[in-house]
Amino acid sequence: MIKPEMPDKAVVLVSGGLDSAVTLAIARAEGFSPYAMSFSYGQRHAVELQAAKRVAETLGAARHLILNIDLGKIGGSALTEGLPVPKDRQIQGTCQEIPITYVPARNTIFLAFALGWAEVLGAETLFIGANAVDFSGYPDCRPEYIQAFEKMANLATKAAVEKKVHIRIQAPLIHMSKAQIIQKGKALGVDFSITHSCYDPGADGLACGRCDSCLLRRRGFHEAGLTDPVPYAP
Amino acid sequence: MIKPEMPDKAVVLVSGGLDSAVTLAIARAEGFSPYAMSFSYGQRHAVELQAAKRVAETLGAARHLILNIDLGKIGGSALTEGLPVPKDRQIQGTCQEIPITYVPARNTIFLAFALGWAEVLGAETLFIGANAVDFSGYPDCRPEYIQAFEKMANLATKAAVEKKVHIRIQAPLIHMSKAQIIQKGKALGVDFSITHSCYDPGADGLACGRCDSCLLRRRGFHEAGLTDPVPYAP
Repeated sequence: MIKPEMPDKAVVLVSGGLDSAVTLAIARAEGFSPYAMSFSYGQRHAVELQAAKRVAETLGAARHLILNIDLGKIGGSALTEGLPVPKDRQIQGTCQEIPITYVPARNTIFLAFALGWAEVLGAETLFIGANAVDFSGYPDCRPEYIQAFEKMANLATKAAVEKKVHIRIQAPLIHMSKAQIIQKGKALGVDFSITHSCYDPGADGLACGRCDSCLLRRRGFHEAGLTDPVPYAP
Repeated sequence: MIKPEMPDKAVVLVSGGLDSAVTLAIARAEGFSPYAMSFSYGQRHAVELQAAKRVAETLGAARHLILNIDLGKIGGSALTEGLPVPKDRQIQGTCQEIPITYVPARNTIFLAFALGWAEVLGAETLFIGANAVDFSGYPDCRPEYIQAFEKMANLATKAAVEKKVHIRIQAPLIHMSKAQIIQKGKALGVDFSITHSCYDPGADGLACGRCDSCLLRRRGFHEAGLTDPVPYAP
């Protein structure tokens, strides 16, 4: 088949964190024209959205769409309800209890919007930075979940049904450790200083260094033998 | 098993239309405490939301949650982009082309939010008024889509993974004709005058009588041998 001149579009979910930045870089490296999608969902750390904008712009997204959604009205998470974010926990991979930073059905909601946008754009591929190794134990970060969403997506849309488009959900980080993700990002030239991972930044915007997300990030940089360029609260 | 004193909660998607009103009535008749959920998504017919409020209140929803979501930013539908709604079409069931009133991934987005709310409420059951017989040809109204969503949902949430909750997506109208839906609603005492089906109501709020949704509704009442209490534009 002759390669078309225009690269294929892909919708990439971008949170402003390290994982989604690397995912966006991977989408570009694979030859896609990435369309970045972020959500303002009542998260306490609105600084995330600023990071998402930097990531989308710096890493060459063709467009960046930010949708406002009322997840706070649903509640059920420390991230949307102003509950204290756990600190200094032992992070042990998949065996631990799911923490209160879990947002109910979040990835399902995000992927559902991405699916809608993909259909309008004529994109077949959705990228998500889900990770099942160094993660916080969220069920919607597991490969079996991603596969089930993909199957459902191919029954859900006009594009899939009428035009025989095959929707693919790409989760390129899913089997990587945080250190491997960081090394991959470094190889692709990702500037980690523009990313933001903390669940509970201070009023000054500084990462706390002690929530699950900070702990995983710091351990990842340590294991990768690299220095995290992001400053942490003293 | 002894029946618990408190009825099980169920999240019911309520648009304000005839189908979702009957679905809500069915959920109650089956003994659930229904939690109605609606969306303000840039639809031209905001009169829908008024109908949704009437339906939720009149048919005894325990709560009614209305979420604002930016579907208009995604576009791709006559219903969110101000495009002309087709009129006087021949409605022939599942064989026709999917019309421009289709909203990309709409039911997936709605069910994703319903899944999140169900988890917070401790509900295992989601009701949706999807219908695969007298429908507009939308792919996300078919049984195979509903089944795939259910399978995905049971991999997506903390409740399903940790508490072994089994999420069920109930689409009680899926194999019914519009006439059967109307007869079912009548048997359950649904007041159809509070529902709103039109895709393109006039400034006076009157149903146009000629869009797909009006045509299906009118034919349904005719076939059911009943009178539609909703007035139509002359």
